[in-house]
Amino acid sequence: MDFDVYGPCRLPDAGAREAARAHQLLLTKPPGALGALEDAAVALAALQGRQRPRLDRIWISVFAADHGVAAEAVSAFPQAVTGEMVRNFANGGAAISVLARRLGATLEVVQLGTVNDPGPLPGVIRAWIAEQTANFCQAPAMDAAQLRRALHAGAESLARAHAGDAHAFVGGEMGIANTTAATALACALLDESPESLAGAGTGLDAAGIARKQAVVVRALQRHADATDALDVLGRLGGFEIAALAGAYIAAAQRGLPVIVDGFIATAAALAAVRINPGVRPWLLFSHCSHERGHRRLLEALDARALLELGLRLGEGSGAAVAVPLLRLACDLHADMATFEQAGVSTA
Amino acid sequence: MDFDVYGPCRLPDAGAREAARAHQLLLTKPPGALGALEDAAVALAALQGRQRPRLDRIWISVFAADHGVAAEAVSAFPQAVTGEMVRNFANGGAAISVLARRLGATLEVVQLGTVNDPGPLPGVIRAWIAEQTANFCQAPAMDAAQLRRALHAGAESLARAHAGDAHAFVGGEMGIANTTAATALACALLDESPESLAGAGTGLDAAGIARKQAVVVRALQRHADATDALDVLGRLGGFEIAALAGAYIAAAQRGLPVIVDGFIATAAALAAVRINPGVRPWLLFSHCSHERGHRRLLEALDARALLELGLRLGEGSGAAVAVPLLRLACDLHADMATFEQAGVSTA
Repeated sequence: MDFDVYGPCRLPDAGAREAARAHQLLLTKPPGALGALEDAAVALAALQGRQRPRLDRIWISVFAADHGVAAEAVSAFPQAVTGEMVRNFANGGAAISVLARRLGATLEVVQLGTVNDPGPLPGVIRAWIAEQTANFCQAPAMDAAQLRRALHAGAESLARAHAGDAHAFVGGEMGIANTTAATALACALLDESPESLAGAGTGLDAAGIARKQAVVVRALQRHADATDALDVLGRLGGFEIAALAGAYIAAAQRGLPVIVDGFIATAAALAAVRINPGVRPWLLFSHCSHERGHRRLLEALDARALLELGLRLGEGSGAAVAVPLLRLACDLHADMATFEQAGVSTA
Repeated sequence: MDFDVYGPCRLPDAGAREAARAHQLLLTKPPGALGALEDAAVALAALQGRQRPRLDRIWISVFAADHGVAAEAVSAFPQAVTGEMVRNFANGGAAISVLARRLGATLEVVQLGTVNDPGPLPGVIRAWIAEQTANFCQAPAMDAAQLRRALHAGAESLARAHAGDAHAFVGGEMGIANTTAATALACALLDESPESLAGAGTGLDAAGIARKQAVVVRALQRHADATDALDVLGRLGGFEIAALAGAYIAAAQRGLPVIVDGFIATAAALAAVRINPGVRPWLLFSHCSHERGHRRLLEALDARALLELGLRLGEGSGAAVAVPLLRLACDLHADMATFEQAGVSTA
């Protein structure tokens, strides 16, 4: 598959956006009374190029990979959990498995490399790069070839979603220690200090957060000479984070709307937008987590997330939870009566 | 039907709550990583008295009524809209109609009195009290008999929901000028000033908000001698607001969980809890609107709403939009694998 991260992105359909916005004003409710649901319907109309958007077919790709920086004791969980969770995804027992079933969504798991390798599993795509990234306190997380393969793996998932006529793409991630990688990536891209962005991840205490901050400080010093966003992604990211960025870029190039998950996915989204600014319009943001840096990332992307439920799981779970709301937004947009149809007086 | 607003409420099942909370800790995710969705599943377990709660059958009752205070020009819409919207509900064109269809929910409309009477309509229950309440700037909105009939109408809806084996009850409202009534009610119950609680309703400008505030000031002066919460509800509420309060009280007495909608429903909920404190545990709060007083009402009820989407429509729409999230919370709780089942290591 041919994939150039710098290749041109499609433009949203301004005509469909205006038609959708005009249609909203005709519906039997005060203007704007459906708040973010109106905005979502209008945004999806522009992205799908039709006045009445649909979200029946949702494609979810969960990218799993291990991180060398786990050696710095930055996670509350042992590294073996990444591979164990790949098996849990395949067996249908993980949160995203349950959510995908209820949504009728297609769920694929892409294993990019885990220290604990569960071996081939049904429903799991092996796109093996290495057991884990290098510890970015000591070396770049990925070399150039690894970064390219991770980006490609994401673009290939997006190509499958596109071939499957998906109405929207959700990317999820699993990787012990990946909030540390995402924090380092966010700090480097935003030029912020680890003190302001590092958070509890999946459950660190105050000492753990301080340790994580110190690790990120060392990583930022080690990689202060990074040249651009792609270089930063390779040095401080992870295979699954780069795959998410690749999927987002490919989505914008093919014109498929993306529902971005939580903190880690948003860090990947910022990397994608910094690499290729045409990606931004294709991203809808689902959930703002309590993770400290997430709000700052959303600000940098000029984004508002639909939900704030205190989720901090990853796997694409926040994006999946937003899907029913976005579907209701589409239904309201398509099926409500207009003032004229219903014979209701206007203000 | 026998209905005593002061009658005892059922108690949530503490054993089911603890079993559900313990079960959450076994699931393959960091403890608490599903945030508000975990809390919702645990709360529903306690209310339904079973470790695995369900929300398959949702009952929605929308109460419609007109308000004498509309004569004070406190709404951006003409009063005829209340009756017109009853017809729109019946014809399936309103937002709540669309939402109910997508949720597979039962939707009934209860017409308590409208100036513009659309006459008998399929799916609309006539529980006629009067064309509208009295203008509470000049007189109590309801006399004692009217208040009793409105409370009863709500309790009767709840009885139908209970007889229909509903898993949860949603109450909605429609009534031009009813944010003014809800604001007056909230100010009186909370002993707050209209300046701090009055908002734009369905679309007032600054002059309109100032007019609404002045109206509420007059109403509070006129009814400063109210004796208790029930008296306040009768003097400053509306037929549909009293019906909501009656439904909430009856829900707590029968042991049916309630998903409370936005500002007006929350004002009714506060009245219900002030009348009968045993109601409080049965209320889940769906949406915090931009309406100024809503946050203050939620604080007074020690409640956090699940969503904040900028909705300001009423009809039960915020509660309906929360249903798919609550359903996902139930699915995750019931269907995720435990660490032991999945062979996943713990922290």
